[in-house]
Amino acid sequence: MTEFGFIDHIRRTFAALPTNGFEGIGDDCAVLPLGDGDALVFTADLLVEGVHFLRHATSARDLGAKALAVNLSDVAAMGARPVATLLSIALPSDATGDWAKAFMEGYRELSERYGAALVGGDTTASKNGITINVTAIGRVAAGRIKRRSAARPGDRIFVAGRLGASGAGLRDLLDGRLETPLADAHRRPEPQVAEGIWLGEHPEVHAMMDLSDGLASDIGHILDQSGVGAEIDLETIPVAAGADLRTAACGGEDYKLLLTADAKAADTLAAAFEARFGAPLYPVGRIVARPGLTWLHDGMVQELDWHGFEHY
Amino acid sequence: MTEFGFIDHIRRTFAALPTNGFEGIGDDCAVLPLGDGDALVFTADLLVEGVHFLRHATSARDLGAKALAVNLSDVAAMGARPVATLLSIALPSDATGDWAKAFMEGYRELSERYGAALVGGDTTASKNGITINVTAIGRVAAGRIKRRSAARPGDRIFVAGRLGASGAGLRDLLDGRLETPLADAHRRPEPQVAEGIWLGEHPEVHAMMDLSDGLASDIGHILDQSGVGAEIDLETIPVAAGADLRTAACGGEDYKLLLTADAKAADTLAAAFEARFGAPLYPVGRIVARPGLTWLHDGMVQELDWHGFEHY
Repeated sequence: MTEFGFIDHIRRTFAALPTNGFEGIGDDCAVLPLGDGDALVFTADLLVEGVHFLRHATSARDLGAKALAVNLSDVAAMGARPVATLLSIALPSDATGDWAKAFMEGYRELSERYGAALVGGDTTASKNGITINVTAIGRVAAGRIKRRSAARPGDRIFVAGRLGASGAGLRDLLDGRLETPLADAHRRPEPQVAEGIWLGEHPEVHAMMDLSDGLASDIGHILDQSGVGAEIDLETIPVAAGADLRTAACGGEDYKLLLTADAKAADTLAAAFEARFGAPLYPVGRIVARPGLTWLHDGMVQELDWHGFEHY
Repeated sequence: MTEFGFIDHIRRTFAALPTNGFEGIGDDCAVLPLGDGDALVFTADLLVEGVHFLRHATSARDLGAKALAVNLSDVAAMGARPVATLLSIALPSDATGDWAKAFMEGYRELSERYGAALVGGDTTASKNGITINVTAIGRVAAGRIKRRSAARPGDRIFVAGRLGASGAGLRDLLDGRLETPLADAHRRPEPQVAEGIWLGEHPEVHAMMDLSDGLASDIGHILDQSGVGAEIDLETIPVAAGADLRTAACGGEDYKLLLTADAKAADTLAAAFEARFGAPLYPVGRIVARPGLTWLHDGMVQELDWHGFEHY
């Protein structure tokens, strides 16, 4: 059973339970509309030593920041502002004391930068490596929530940053080159929190999510949830310095926002984004009615067997 | 650095961050008051193989139920109704497929019994044993929330069930006796959800929490948070069949509610509880103004160096 097979199994077996006002699984976050026009959003991510990180290849401080960053990225992908987190951490006896304090320092720095409170969690011993779970809570006006299901044929597709740095940095780490700028990009992703909130305020933005498993894989969630297809123009994918096109399309953990926007308003949106953030929204293709993902190069269909990211 | 030392370190280093409306760490759950008179409560618990459970000594189904039960118990301890959970689970290659499905079956059964939706989470591979994090969300009228800080001198202290079965069951498991009723009690705790909600509705109940680390340890949290002391009458502690007094006072994971109540209303409360649930509230002592925990036997002070539960 694959991860996605297991998730489908869970979705089926829990479908008959009451929802208690929560909207179902399928987006970066679960959504609970409140009575006052706001909604809360919830997400959880697990980081496991040897699967998501190698202890010798990251500092405790960077790991503390990354454990939070990947969750804040999910909150931002809904257009929401992070408000609080719960941190659960299992520490083996060789990662207590100074290691734990440095981890918390990285976690605190990023919490402070984005104004998120730490409101609970759990700390425990571990017999086998470090495991971290962060649950993040965001708040957003209900009408501004961005969902994977909102893409419409004709929408332009954008990514909110260059891609592939994290995937190329992972290759550096696995080859033993720990001190490269790409390795740093992999170890210390910066979530697009302000960008997500700003895009949430723009009704011409339709679907949105964050890129954690790679464009080639992640866009499939938008297509599935929206019942549409997409054409991606390979020559327009913004490749990070030091990465190659395939890593930009298939590498994971870039944590840049992926969105679709009404074609008529797309150029104005992109110009306003660049004026606000000093960096472009990169157009990479368009949503089409016919299901499926088509790769184009200079308008010619390319048969590519490209998929998303696999962890270590 | 001990677990509690680490938690104190976290509390200090995060104290300057904005709270975003959340009440601080210190209770079984974090609390977020909503605008409409309700509040949400949040808790997270991590279960680590080899620390919190031994895979050969539990079924996947029981473990799925227990992972949820320990969190529902925290929600109930606030007087809240569980509404949703997020489940993160790291599975090694020898615990996928049927094991994972059986785990989810246990999780689903308990979710259904207490009406909690499963709204998110994460599934991932593990190189080193099974790790599970559950984040539970509850809802409660803000005025009915029970806190550890609300005990007052003169309050009667009650526990809402017999104690020590889980601790004695753990001893059975560690001695290789896997199929005893006590071992079952350890593997399959039942959270006092209905009892917690009912007690939350009674203003004569002051402080409340759940017993996860043992009465001897857990009551210290109520005393610290309330700035009071307690006298416990050893001869009144309700010892579960097959357990001994020390295990009842010091053993962990019973997940029974511990509460203090206004002395004038305490007998009426206990009678109403027994009429409603068919089982007594057990009086075990009283809150006093002078800080510290005093053990009494037939009114005579006992010098006992009893502490809470240590995991494997």
